[in-house]
Amino acid sequence: MSRIAAIYPSDRVTLREVGLRDGLQLVKAPPTTQEKIDWLVAEVAAGVRHFEVGSFLPAARFPQFADIDDMIAAASALNAHSAALTLNERGAERALRTEVDELVCVVSATEAHSQANMRRSRAEAIELVRHVATQRDAQAPAKLVNAGISMALGCSLAGDVGHDEVLKLAESCLDAGADIVGLADTVGYAGPRAVGALCARMEKLCGNRPFIIHLHDTRGMGVANAAAALDNGARVIDASLGGLGGCPFAPGATGNVVFEDIVFLAETMGYSTGVDLAALGRARAIAEAAIPDETFHGALKRAGPPNNASWAAGPAV
Amino acid sequence: MSRIAAIYPSDRVTLREVGLRDGLQLVKAPPTTQEKIDWLVAEVAAGVRHFEVGSFLPAARFPQFADIDDMIAAASALNAHSAALTLNERGAERALRTEVDELVCVVSATEAHSQANMRRSRAEAIELVRHVATQRDAQAPAKLVNAGISMALGCSLAGDVGHDEVLKLAESCLDAGADIVGLADTVGYAGPRAVGALCARMEKLCGNRPFIIHLHDTRGMGVANAAAALDNGARVIDASLGGLGGCPFAPGATGNVVFEDIVFLAETMGYSTGVDLAALGRARAIAEAAIPDETFHGALKRAGPPNNASWAAGPAV
Repeated sequence: MSRIAAIYPSDRVTLREVGLRDGLQLVKAPPTTQEKIDWLVAEVAAGVRHFEVGSFLPAARFPQFADIDDMIAAASALNAHSAALTLNERGAERALRTEVDELVCVVSATEAHSQANMRRSRAEAIELVRHVATQRDAQAPAKLVNAGISMALGCSLAGDVGHDEVLKLAESCLDAGADIVGLADTVGYAGPRAVGALCARMEKLCGNRPFIIHLHDTRGMGVANAAAALDNGARVIDASLGGLGGCPFAPGATGNVVFEDIVFLAETMGYSTGVDLAALGRARAIAEAAIPDETFHGALKRAGPPNNASWAAGPAV
Repeated sequence: MSRIAAIYPSDRVTLREVGLRDGLQLVKAPPTTQEKIDWLVAEVAAGVRHFEVGSFLPAARFPQFADIDDMIAAASALNAHSAALTLNERGAERALRTEVDELVCVVSATEAHSQANMRRSRAEAIELVRHVATQRDAQAPAKLVNAGISMALGCSLAGDVGHDEVLKLAESCLDAGADIVGLADTVGYAGPRAVGALCARMEKLCGNRPFIIHLHDTRGMGVANAAAALDNGARVIDASLGGLGGCPFAPGATGNVVFEDIVFLAETMGYSTGVDLAALGRARAIAEAAIPDETFHGALKRAGPPNNASWAAGPAV
C-alpha cells in the first residue's frame, strides 16, 4: 500500500481536525501548550486521528504556534497523524527535522491573492511545493506533502475562480510532488453545486489518490458543501471543533465547518467516521475553557444526536 | 393551468415563509398584529410571495394567532399567497370563511406521535384532510388544501420512520383531496441522504404535482437537506426568517431552516428565487425589533453575499 493510501484510505472518510492550526490563526489569547495538548489528547480519545497541529511561522509574529515542536511531539506520542503548515523554505527545513507526518504548503488559486497574501506568484508557490517534496524525498521520505489551494471556490480579491484554472493548479501541485491536494473555499463563497462540480472533476484528475476539501461556513453552506463533496468523490474533509477559525476577509463570520456537525453528516450519509460524539463533547469543553473569549458553533452540541433513531453510518429507511 | 401549478409552478423554486406561524408557535412575548403586518409587508417588498400567516387554533391557548383573520386580510391586500394551519373541523370552517388561499392540515407520520400530539389516529387525521377538501370543494374551490406530514424523517417518540410508510400516507393525503403534500423533518433527525432518497420517491409519487419539504435545523443539517431536496425534485421549501421556531422536542435547538440562507443556497444552485437579500435584511430588522427576546440565526445576515463574485441563479464555473 502506498504511503498516501495508508494515511488517507480512499474507501473511507477521513476527517482532519484543523482547529489547532486554522482555528487558532486569529485567536487573540491563545491557549497554553498544555491546554492544546489536553485538547489533542481528548480528541484522540474521541477517535480523531488526523490533526493540523500548528504552523512553522515566525514565533514572533504568530506566538500561538511557537510551540509547534511540542505539538508535533505530543501528536506523535499519541500515535496521531500530525500536519503542519510550511509556508516557506525555512519552515519546511524546520519541519523536516521534526516527527511531523505531513507538510502543508499553500497555493493561491488566483494571482491577485497569491501576491497580496504571500507576496509571491502562483508559479513560485508551486516551485515551493516542488522544493519541499524534493527535500522530503531526500531527508524524510515517509512524510507526506500536502498542497492546499486556497480561494479555490471564489476569491475575496479576484471574485470568481474558474474550475479549469483550479484543476490546472492541482495538476501542477501533483506534478511538483505533492501527495495530496486540498481545495479550499477559504472565504465561504460556494454553494453545493459548485463544490460538487469541482470535486467531480478533481476526482477524475486524482484517480485513485484522495483529495481534501477544506470548507468555511461563512455563509452557512459548509455542511451542504461537505455533503456535495462526499457525493462527488471527496474522502478527506477538514473541519474544526466548534467551527473555530474566523475569516480575516469576512469579519464576524463563522470559521471552519464544525467538526461535530460533519461527523453527524458523514454518519447519516453512511460513512463511518470512528468518532464518538459524546467524547468529542469532552474535547470541546477543554477547548472552550482554554479560549473562553472565542465563539464555538455547532448544532450537535446544542441538540445532541437523535437518541432513539438510527443515524450512525447511515439511517434505516 | 391547474390551481396548484399556478401557485407552486413546478419549473421554479418557491420558498414558503413559515416564520409568522411555525416561527411564533413557541414565542413567549409575541409581536403585535401591526408588527406582524409590518414584517409581512417588508418581506413581500423583498420578493417573498408565500406565507403561513398563522393558525386557526383557540385564541385562548394560542394568543399569538388570535389575529389570524387580520393577517389573512393583510396578505390578501398585498396580493401575497396566504396559508393557515387548520388542525380541526372548527378551524377549517373558520378558514373557509376567510380570504386565506391555503388550508394546512397536519398528519403525523407515526401513530405514536399522532396520538400524543393530536389525540387522534393517523387514519382520523387523513379523514380530516378529506373533510377539509370536501368542504373546500363545496364552499371555496379556489383554495388549496395542503397536508403536511410531520415527523416524516424521524420521530421524537417512535424513532425511525420508514419511507414506505411516509409515501403511503402521502398517497392517502392526495387521495383524500390534498392538492399538495409536505414532508417535515419536524425534529431535525435527517441527513441529506435520507432527505434525498425520500424526495426522489415522493417526486415519483407526485408526478407533475409539486411537494413541499419542511426542514428544521436542529442538528445543523437544514441547508444540506434543502440542497438534497432540490437535487431530488422538491420545488417548494419551507423556511423562516432568521430560523425562527424552536423545537418543543429539543430544548435550546434552532428552529426552521433559515430563510435568508436558503435563498442563497437556491441561488447558488441555479434557482432564481426572486428574493432580494438586502431587502430581506430590512424585514429581519423589523422582526428582531418586534420579538427582541428571540434568537435569530443565519450566516448570510452576518457575512452578506459575496460582493465580487457570481452567485445569483448559479455560479460561473
